[in-house]
Amino acid sequence: MKFGALPLTKLVEQFASLPGIGRKTAQRLAFYILTLTKEQAKEFADAILDAHEKIRYCSVCKNYTDREHCEICEDETRDSSLICVVEDAKDVAAFERTREYRGLYHVLGGLISPMDGIGPDQIFVKELLVRVQSGEVREVIMATNPTVEGEATAMYVGRLLKPFGVRVSRLAYGIPVGSDLEYADEVTLFKALENRSEI
Amino acid sequence: MKFGALPLTKLVEQFASLPGIGRKTAQRLAFYILTLTKEQAKEFADAILDAHEKIRYCSVCKNYTDREHCEICEDETRDSSLICVVEDAKDVAAFERTREYRGLYHVLGGLISPMDGIGPDQIFVKELLVRVQSGEVREVIMATNPTVEGEATAMYVGRLLKPFGVRVSRLAYGIPVGSDLEYADEVTLFKALENRSEI
Repeated sequence: MKFGALPLTKLVEQFASLPGIGRKTAQRLAFYILTLTKEQAKEFADAILDAHEKIRYCSVCKNYTDREHCEICEDETRDSSLICVVEDAKDVAAFERTREYRGLYHVLGGLISPMDGIGPDQIFVKELLVRVQSGEVREVIMATNPTVEGEATAMYVGRLLKPFGVRVSRLAYGIPVGSDLEYADEVTLFKALENRSEI
Repeated sequence: MKFGALPLTKLVEQFASLPGIGRKTAQRLAFYILTLTKEQAKEFADAILDAHEKIRYCSVCKNYTDREHCEICEDETRDSSLICVVEDAKDVAAFERTREYRGLYHVLGGLISPMDGIGPDQIFVKELLVRVQSGEVREVIMATNPTVEGEATAMYVGRLLKPFGVRVSRLAYGIPVGSDLEYADEVTLFKALENRSEI
């Protein structure tokens, strides 16, 4: 495809490399960038560099943060005896949108999937055990996606946690099986939190 | 919405400001940026700045280019007696995808639309007349979108061109009325070029 100039072609390619963005959408976005003011274009570019440079894992819950601890772990009004275990940071954002959950999180950074060569050591399971061992935790809610890997990870981590004497629960099946947590609506997610059942 | 950190929230907002990108897609794209290597993130940011800085209008056809003249105007194998007049640069890319059109283009940069306060002086009509006046042009194909504004612009510009003794044609109605040229498939566009009719 010809866009008349190399810098434009390169920008289209960058957008097309993003997940879920096809060639025509990429082209539309690139042309849109050309209509921005110089300041706006610089802001966009800076946002990419800034986020990439400054964002790292929270040393406690492995959520994204730009400090040592994330905002949620640092919030003293939250219930630190309750940990919601999720697959990734997108799921934290989803639960936060319910505005009902007041406990902490633990981001696994993936799910156990022997087929893809991902075992418990490739995700942040050990770090969760350390948190639970500290003694402050009363309940761990396994909030992984309702898929085969999500279920397996919840069962596996749940069994590891039982000996510590904490309550281990699972999201209620209010969430449609086989879907993705990220796209669940707020009310469904809240219902699922409310009706969680013991593993 | 909380994403745990300001740089991440800012990046999400930047993506969400793009046309056709909603909050959740923006979030997904921002999280994807975090998974890139430092080099890849820099490349992306540079592509935005580069395109924005270097891209300007071709001094002849008003297509986007990073030089004085665009690649198409500079290509001596192309038929300079034939000009295809389009609304914007996206339409040039669409015609180039047919790989069948070998003439030149003229990008109007908009359509005449009295309702939006856009008259012939707000788009590159004068520049087209100058090109046709030069005498080299044999035919002008009006390839504006098949919408009310597109038709009106084609008729208006066509009437201005007639006195110069050039053939003025219009894309055949192979293209579905009311749609957008940008999304037409290659074959449809080629058929529309082939069956163009005199205004």
